[in-house]
Parts: sequence; C-alpha cells; structure tokens
Amino acid sequence: MSYTNQMSRLQAACREKSPLCIGLDTDISYLPESVAGKFSTPAEAVLAYNRELVAATGRYAACYKVQIAYYEAMGLAGLKTFADTLKCVKAADIPVISDVKRGDIADTAKAYARAHFTGDFETDIITVNPYMGFDTLEPFAEYAEKAGKGMFVLLRTSNPGMTDIENQELVSGGPVLERVGEQLLKLADRFGFGTDSAEGCSPIGAVVGCTEETNAQQLRNKYSNIFFLIPGYGAQGGAARVAATLLSKAGGTVNSSRGILCAWKKDPKLADKRDSGILTMDDIVGAAAEAAANATADLKNAFSLLNA
Amino acid sequence: MSYTNQMSRLQAACREKSPLCIGLDTDISYLPESVAGKFSTPAEAVLAYNRELVAATGRYAACYKVQIAYYEAMGLAGLKTFADTLKCVKAADIPVISDVKRGDIADTAKAYARAHFTGDFETDIITVNPYMGFDTLEPFAEYAEKAGKGMFVLLRTSNPGMTDIENQELVSGGPVLERVGEQLLKLADRFGFGTDSAEGCSPIGAVVGCTEETNAQQLRNKYSNIFFLIPGYGAQGGAARVAATLLSKAGGTVNSSRGILCAWKKDPKLADKRDSGILTMDDIVGAAAEAAANATADLKNAFSLLNA
Repeated sequence: MSYTNQMSRLQAACREKSPLCIGLDTDISYLPESVAGKFSTPAEAVLAYNRELVAATGRYAACYKVQIAYYEAMGLAGLKTFADTLKCVKAADIPVISDVKRGDIADTAKAYARAHFTGDFETDIITVNPYMGFDTLEPFAEYAEKAGKGMFVLLRTSNPGMTDIENQELVSGGPVLERVGEQLLKLADRFGFGTDSAEGCSPIGAVVGCTEETNAQQLRNKYSNIFFLIPGYGAQGGAARVAATLLSKAGGTVNSSRGILCAWKKDPKLADKRDSGILTMDDIVGAAAEAAANATADLKNAFSLLNA
Repeated sequence: MSYTNQMSRLQAACREKSPLCIGLDTDISYLPESVAGKFSTPAEAVLAYNRELVAATGRYAACYKVQIAYYEAMGLAGLKTFADTLKCVKAADIPVISDVKRGDIADTAKAYARAHFTGDFETDIITVNPYMGFDTLEPFAEYAEKAGKGMFVLLRTSNPGMTDIENQELVSGGPVLERVGEQLLKLADRFGFGTDSAEGCSPIGAVVGCTEETNAQQLRNKYSNIFFLIPGYGAQGGAARVAATLLSKAGGTVNSSRGILCAWKKDPKLADKRDSGILTMDDIVGAAAEAAANATADLKNAFSLLNA
C-alpha cells in the first residue's frame, strides 16, 4: 500500500499492528557488561543490540524512535551507529522517527531539514522544537510537502519542567502550548486531512506526554485530526486511561524505551544469569521481545476497554 | 592566565582583542566552485576553508561559533569536519562556541551534555534551548560547575518568529523571555559573580539578538552580570548603537557569519576573477580577513562612541 505521507503510513501501522513505538534510546549502560564487553567499542555494541531488537520486536512495533542524543554522546562512531540504526529499521520496512528536537532560525532550520530528511541521516519523521517561532517550522514543512516527510512538534511534553514555559498562561488567552497548537492546526490544514480521514492524516503531528496531569480529553478533542507521539507512558494505574484517550480520533503512537531496552534487568527468569554476570545477547533480546509483546497487549487492552 | 570558567575566558578575550565572534556556518555554497571543486568532497572543502579562516582571522576574533546544523547537513563526513574545526580553533588557543541549541528532558540532556562537553565534539561553550523547562538546563549547568564549561541560553533571538512565543505576555507579568531571564539570573547566581567582576563572569550566558526592535538598554540593565552572545548585527544604521548597548556591563560577543565567510562575493577587488570563475582559496580567505578586520574596527568604534 502506498501513502501520501510518512505520518499516514505510521497511522496505518498503528491501526494494523498496535500503537507501540519502541524507543531506541540505547545508552551503553543499558547493556550488561557480559554483552557489551564482546564488542570493541560501545557504538558497535549498541548497533548490534539495536539490530537484534528490531529483528525480534518488529512484529509488535508500529515504529521505532531513535533518540539522537545517546548517539551524539558517543561521538562520530555513535553517529555512524545512529545512521546504521535508521537504515536497519528502514530495511525492515517499518516507519522510523528521529527524535532530534531541532529548532533554529529559518536558514539554519533549512540545514537541519536537509540533515534529517536527506543523506546519511535520512529518516521518515522528526521531532522539532517550536520555541524560536513558527517561521522556524517552515523548512521542515517544505519536506512534508515535497517529499511526504513527517514532523512531530513539541506540544505538551511529559517532563516536570513543562510547567515552566509550555503551560504558562498568556494574556492573550490560554497557555503557551495552545498557541503552538493553533499554529499546528493551521500547518496541518494545508495538507487537507480531516478527522479520521480514510486517506490518512496530515504529516504535521504533535508530541503529547502521557502523565496523570495531562488533560487528555481536552487535547484530543482540540487537535482531533492531529496524530500524536505519546511519551511518558508507564505501567502506573490511570496512565492507561490517559493513553487510551490520546489514542482516539486521529490516534497516536505510544513510546516505550527503557521498559523494553532494559527489560532484562527485571526479568525474574534471568535472575541467576544476571547475578552471575553471564547474560548473553539472546537473553537480553528475549526479555525485550517479551516486554514489547506485553506492552502491545497492555495498550490494546487499555484502548479497547475505554473504547468498548 | 587561567580562568575559572570558559565564559570568563571569552569575556577577557573580548576585552583584549575585540567583541567579534566569527560564525563558521560554513555551507558549501559559501565557497566558489573554483575553490570547492579542488576537493573531493564538500566536507573536505569546508574544513580546508575553516582552517585557513582561523589562521587568517584569529587575531581579530575573540572566539569562533560553529553552527552544527551546516555540518549535520553533510552527514557523517560533515560531523567529522565539525569535530576537526573545533580542534583547529582549540589548537589556536581561541575560545570556541558550538551553536547546537539542544534541549530535551533531563536524562536526554545529560547525553547532550556528554556529547558536547566531552569526546569528539568537546567544546568550550554551547547554546541551549530552554523551552521544555528549567529542569532541562541542569545537566549542562553541572558541566559548568565541575568542568568550567559555559552555556548561552536562548533569551531574545533575532529572527522574526521571536514574537510568536518568546515575546508573548504572560498573565503572571512580563513576556515569556523574562521568565527565562529570571531563571538565568538564579542559575548564574550559583557561581557568585557580580556585575563587572574583575574575576570574570558566570558560565551562564544569554543569546540576545541585535535588531532595531531589541530593547537593548532594558535587557542590559536587567541582566547586568550576564555575558551575551549577540547575533543579528549587520552594517545597518542604528544597529551599531544596539550592539554597543548590549556590549556594556558584563559585555558580550557579536557574531558575524556570512558577512565574513562570503565577503569574497562582494569584494570589488575580486570582481574580475569572480566573473572569470578563477577565484582561489587565497582570494576568498583574504576577503574574509579584510571583512573581519573591518568588523572589528566597526565594533570598537561603535562601542567607544557610545561609551565615550
């Protein structure tokens, strides 16, 4: 099947498989020494783990999100691993999001758009930071128009600091994040998709964190035709309800990173091997695949309970 | 002379040499074909130009600012050139700023801090985006505390879009950027430097654009002990007055990028060679050095006129 843009492709994958987005925020500390030590560099170990993860969890994940910061932190070799990880997900024919949160004046944003929508780091969808103004989003929107690429703009993040700026009330009415939201709706409208359009959704999505404090119903109603990237979902009580609400209308993809990457740390079946320091790549990938299967079932369950 | 932090080192360089910061936003299109064509890749051509520029303009520049977006746009080879450019400036014993404008939740910001304050991309000072909240600045501040690194936080940028969020009035009083400013003052205070301290300044600086609309006197008075990174300064009329105002109190460094990198495009002495397509590396570096000398003289002049 062909799609008019990458966000529509991701939306379809979420509906067909599950809303699960696996976050490859693969820090070297997320691998046990018995696995990492088998590689000559951290960057090689991370790439090997990512490849095995994609092979073992691809049937559960609607998409993968690769957080560039962890790769930048490993320098040039790390960015080679970042590029190779993107290639690996693309080779598996699964949508891939580069979580880069770039944002700069328009001329510079043009360079960032080239950086992540062409060449070594070419991805399907990126995350962007709107703080410097709406003119800074245009170069990314151009790639949506001409190449079907997608972008998730920060709307309501899941960290405690979201109250510092995003949630501050403006004299003109509503918090800062609603002002960003208005612009998102305008940008999205350019592409002409309505709510629950059978042809897919606009390539302009939004990051909306899943926390107890998130006013999920209001956000979902207000941005009914915007597809969401949803971080911050844990196994805690009411959060499943928040996630399910955010998944209605145009839908979204729910990110899980450490819960899957580090599942081996908590897997009771691996307790002895963990204590003896003899965990293998197969062990940690197996634990991750099980965690991914559980996360998928959990999300489907939460969604169907709320939308029954 | 030794400094307690990199921002103080930069402040001293601005006072001793000139406030000029040369921006190495070196896009391959800023080199004439007759020069670029002599190298096998754009990344090699850009590195060669950067090296020649640093050699020829080092006596005028208080510092260099390297905008990572232009290097990211060239992929892995571009980021190698980014790393080598940082090394080249450091080898010349000149402070270097990585203009990365990173910003993310605290755990991810830790990875970005490692990325730019250690390893292949180790720099002296970075630029950061505060939008996701003040918790996201802490990992960078830690490197200021333990390693003397510096950070410029976006306060008032020079692009038209600064009115979209930064300059929006809050119900709690003042525009968004003043809320960021309050936090900057708190962060800076941790380091215990007052206005015009003989021992230098806090490692926490601010980006304040130089445009006709900038309320320079108010910003300079309010953040009297904060060192500024000042983009947006051109050759236009009153902007020199704005720059001079921003340079008083704790001072600042004024960025010029294309005016220097692309000086060869407007140099009347090079008209014939430009038209014949036979410009050499020496030609374009010579034009850049002359532009840097002029920019330095212009800034010193503006500053002394206003502060006479």
